[in-house]
Amino acid sequence: MQSFADRLVHAVRQKGTPVCVGLDPRFDLLPRGLQLLARRTYGASARAVATAFVEFNRAILDAVADFVPACKPQIAFYEEYGAEGVLAFEETVSYAQSKGVLVISDAKRGDIGTTAEAYAQAHLGGAGDFLGHGFDADAVTVNPYLGRDSLEPFLRLSAERGKGVFILVRTSNPGARDLQDIDAGGRPMYEHVADLVRELGGTLGTSGLSDIGAVVGATYPREAQRLRELMPHAPFLVPGYGAQSATAADAVAGFPADGLGAVVSSSRGIIFAYRDEPYASRHGETGFAAAARDAARDMADRLNAALEQRTANSERRSVRA
Amino acid sequence: MQSFADRLVHAVRQKGTPVCVGLDPRFDLLPRGLQLLARRTYGASARAVATAFVEFNRAILDAVADFVPACKPQIAFYEEYGAEGVLAFEETVSYAQSKGVLVISDAKRGDIGTTAEAYAQAHLGGAGDFLGHGFDADAVTVNPYLGRDSLEPFLRLSAERGKGVFILVRTSNPGARDLQDIDAGGRPMYEHVADLVRELGGTLGTSGLSDIGAVVGATYPREAQRLRELMPHAPFLVPGYGAQSATAADAVAGFPADGLGAVVSSSRGIIFAYRDEPYASRHGETGFAAAARDAARDMADRLNAALEQRTANSERRSVRA
Repeated sequence: MQSFADRLVHAVRQKGTPVCVGLDPRFDLLPRGLQLLARRTYGASARAVATAFVEFNRAILDAVADFVPACKPQIAFYEEYGAEGVLAFEETVSYAQSKGVLVISDAKRGDIGTTAEAYAQAHLGGAGDFLGHGFDADAVTVNPYLGRDSLEPFLRLSAERGKGVFILVRTSNPGARDLQDIDAGGRPMYEHVADLVRELGGTLGTSGLSDIGAVVGATYPREAQRLRELMPHAPFLVPGYGAQSATAADAVAGFPADGLGAVVSSSRGIIFAYRDEPYASRHGETGFAAAARDAARDMADRLNAALEQRTANSERRSVRA
Repeated sequence: MQSFADRLVHAVRQKGTPVCVGLDPRFDLLPRGLQLLARRTYGASARAVATAFVEFNRAILDAVADFVPACKPQIAFYEEYGAEGVLAFEETVSYAQSKGVLVISDAKRGDIGTTAEAYAQAHLGGAGDFLGHGFDADAVTVNPYLGRDSLEPFLRLSAERGKGVFILVRTSNPGARDLQDIDAGGRPMYEHVADLVRELGGTLGTSGLSDIGAVVGATYPREAQRLRELMPHAPFLVPGYGAQSATAADAVAGFPADGLGAVVSSSRGIIFAYRDEPYASRHGETGFAAAARDAARDMADRLNAALEQRTANSERRSVRA
């Protein structure tokens, strides 16, 4: 069984970009044609929304799967529509995997004991494990506030099934400052979380990376560099690119030196690219999937340029030294 | 529209106890008869589990609704079974409400921006709000690690719809020490969270309590007293009684002086009481609902005794002073 980190590194290397597409559909932002068709078929119902979400996601995945290594469906947007929405989430996960795209379930779950076990099973478990089934995603995001015993069930399942776990360390939102930045013994709180991530360890793959990764927002590049030092083996999931105004250079700040071992996610900037220029006039509303492809391609180019720039800078520094 | 805090205080006063029943079903712990019937009807499937969960919860609710003010289904145990499980969660929420029992959705969600809005809508939203529907629970638990902007969407919906929000402050598990207890400027991290809860404010009801409450574990009674001082208006949701070995006296430590404005939850100790003495020999496996009723009744008696004892002690102290 290949470790999650190895699968991630392999996918990023093979596809040549660390782009992760956030599959965060919102009904009112979907192309009108999809909205109308779903409402004509199922009326004003959760099923209409769920059906449109699956169709939308499939089209996006078809358009980007050949060069995008991972996607990150945010379960909140599905949970909002109850059981129907969760079914759409399940279908999205398996469709992405059938197209060779790794799936990070963005759930940010955090609870204790048997509850944490149930969440781990829900997101990382598979059909054969027990009565019923988990979503069987390749990785899941988790919240560390409840401490080590809230994370351990995820680690166990990660080791057993070659799955990944991304622990929230430093998020990309303004409110991250409220608790994550609180000074605790001369260091911000989030560095203590980084210590915890490092201590938890996790399975190391042949890539030298662990299955236990960290969420590190793109909006704080200097902190990301420091966090890379604190967690040398952790794959990073980097949100906040695009919509949250971080640049490509910001987003790659926490990447390991070889440029592997991290993915940068963007949601609205890719999946709803058809609503914004230059993609809107190029593709129109019916070309939403092609617009998403172009936007993901542009993001890949910018990230690769930023990674090359960073390598060039560090070579210049070592020549000078 | 009555505020959540007022509805909670009214229910606790009317029913005469702050017991909150944790509806955390686990298939392998259900009475054998329920397991067999579900598997005979639906085979080894998520639907079998979901059906058994709903039947089990209904029987428990029927047995306790006349004297229990609130229940707390833990969504993880439902999410574990995918869309079928979430459907069972939805059915549990509405059945409890139809029996006059307030529902706290124990979801511990925490995310940012539109994602937090989607979670708030999912747990506190109702059918009329938008296409599809939320679970329309009376309150939800949330995780504060992402900061103020991750909580605001819940506060907005709380104000709009008279719903409650319980923010995790101090949990009852051993791992709570890892991050919540970290010293931050001479005070543990969780006190900063308590400050945040107080600052967020929320709608104050005629009871003088806010709709923004706090989760404060029963296993740390001295800390609970201190947290009551820091958050005088916050309803407390107190987990950890019973299975996590806190006593009734521990559990009421953070209650306001009048004994209102907090609920104490117990899950396994009530719903699986039929597996343990004295309830097992009294009721047997088929009497699981009556066993749950007895266990909830016993817990209510112990909490009430602890509250009376506390009042007596404080009167003795004021006579001495």
